[in-house]
Amino acid sequence: MHSERHILSAFDRDLESVQAMILKMSGLVEDAILDAARALDTRDDELAEKVRRGDKAIDALEEQVNHECARLIALRSPTAGDLRVVLSVMKIAGILERCGDYAKNMAKRSMIVSQANPVAGASGAIRRMARAVQVMLHDALDAFVARDVERAAEIRVRDADVDQMYNALFREFLTHMMEDPRNITACMHLHFIAKNIERMGDHATGVAEQVIYLVTGDMPEEARPKGDVTSLAPGMAE
Amino acid sequence: MHSERHILSAFDRDLESVQAMILKMSGLVEDAILDAARALDTRDDELAEKVRRGDKAIDALEEQVNHECARLIALRSPTAGDLRVVLSVMKIAGILERCGDYAKNMAKRSMIVSQANPVAGASGAIRRMARAVQVMLHDALDAFVARDVERAAEIRVRDADVDQMYNALFREFLTHMMEDPRNITACMHLHFIAKNIERMGDHATGVAEQVIYLVTGDMPEEARPKGDVTSLAPGMAE
Repeated sequence: MHSERHILSAFDRDLESVQAMILKMSGLVEDAILDAARALDTRDDELAEKVRRGDKAIDALEEQVNHECARLIALRSPTAGDLRVVLSVMKIAGILERCGDYAKNMAKRSMIVSQANPVAGASGAIRRMARAVQVMLHDALDAFVARDVERAAEIRVRDADVDQMYNALFREFLTHMMEDPRNITACMHLHFIAKNIERMGDHATGVAEQVIYLVTGDMPEEARPKGDVTSLAPGMAE
Repeated sequence: MHSERHILSAFDRDLESVQAMILKMSGLVEDAILDAARALDTRDDELAEKVRRGDKAIDALEEQVNHECARLIALRSPTAGDLRVVLSVMKIAGILERCGDYAKNMAKRSMIVSQANPVAGASGAIRRMARAVQVMLHDALDAFVARDVERAAEIRVRDADVDQMYNALFREFLTHMMEDPRNITACMHLHFIAKNIERMGDHATGVAEQVIYLVTGDMPEEARPKGDVTSLAPGMAE
């Protein structure tokens, strides 16, 4: 009995340590998102370059999380419930790693966009979108640590706002491109940047869904207000 | 001793069963990629709709794989090496699920593109690209089942061809858009389709890297010929 308690608390200690790692990862990813958007808005290639280089640290952390989680499973043979938590941690680390890639990609593209003529209003709107997604991601990790289903559910709703911002930008870019072909290249890259942010919103929602799954045992239904309508509305084709 | 043998073979049997599931998943994803590209090329909205609907089955299989893998870990307490295989299976299932999403997205966009004026040469080129990625994915799964590092390494090289096809298409789309603004909307969607296929190539490479990691214990270095240069070459900004 005493020995079982000991094993349990060793598991909890290990779990806290990998949870701390994904929180650290999330902090780096959030900074990368905000910095990439700021670099775009202020045409700061140095800052963009910093974001680009910083992705390595995020990748290294994911590797470390996976390694620690595998070690934890092998060493502690967690119960079904505990195992689910560990697998969620790995899943979230994977999501954060991908968000880091998106931020890196944003930074690379911002260095290209900074060579072109500015597209009115675009970089400010993108910065607001990036800020919204950064907060979503932060809250999703908080909800994970607190196993807070209500907060997680609320993040899913907020994702719809980000999707709306993206859809508005998509239309705006089309207009700019049609008005002046010299805008086309910049708009293609700005559009990719906006799409990357929209995807990060989906990923933050993915973290929130992990929380719901962990606590309730069920993946939420597809009821959440969908999303990027640019691939849905045939009206957009005209 | 006898009992240990029994446990080992039970693990192997379970492992074969989840491996069969990801092979089935891969088959569905490969069909989805080819069908989506064919639907685009032949303007077949019905086929596109079939791809769109078919994604649910892929998602369900991923859920099943994750469930079975968690059960397998909890029940069999696999050794470190066996655990690595199970975690790889889960990782690959996640990759395939995302490829399924990309194919679904391709199908949705093909229904929009089919309403617009054709963009010369585009859908044929996209179909060739899709075919190349489908074969890569198929080979990556084969390499996984056979734990064939050489074959896996070869897939990483082939990804560079797909990236080149994508880069060529990107330039072509820019030209079409600048030549005639009425091409802009269709080209935006075609570009997304091409980018989705390019990403699936990256994902197939991700599967191949899992194989290398499984067999050698090391993740391959970033030495593989990189990729989508449209976010790298400042020259593209002009």
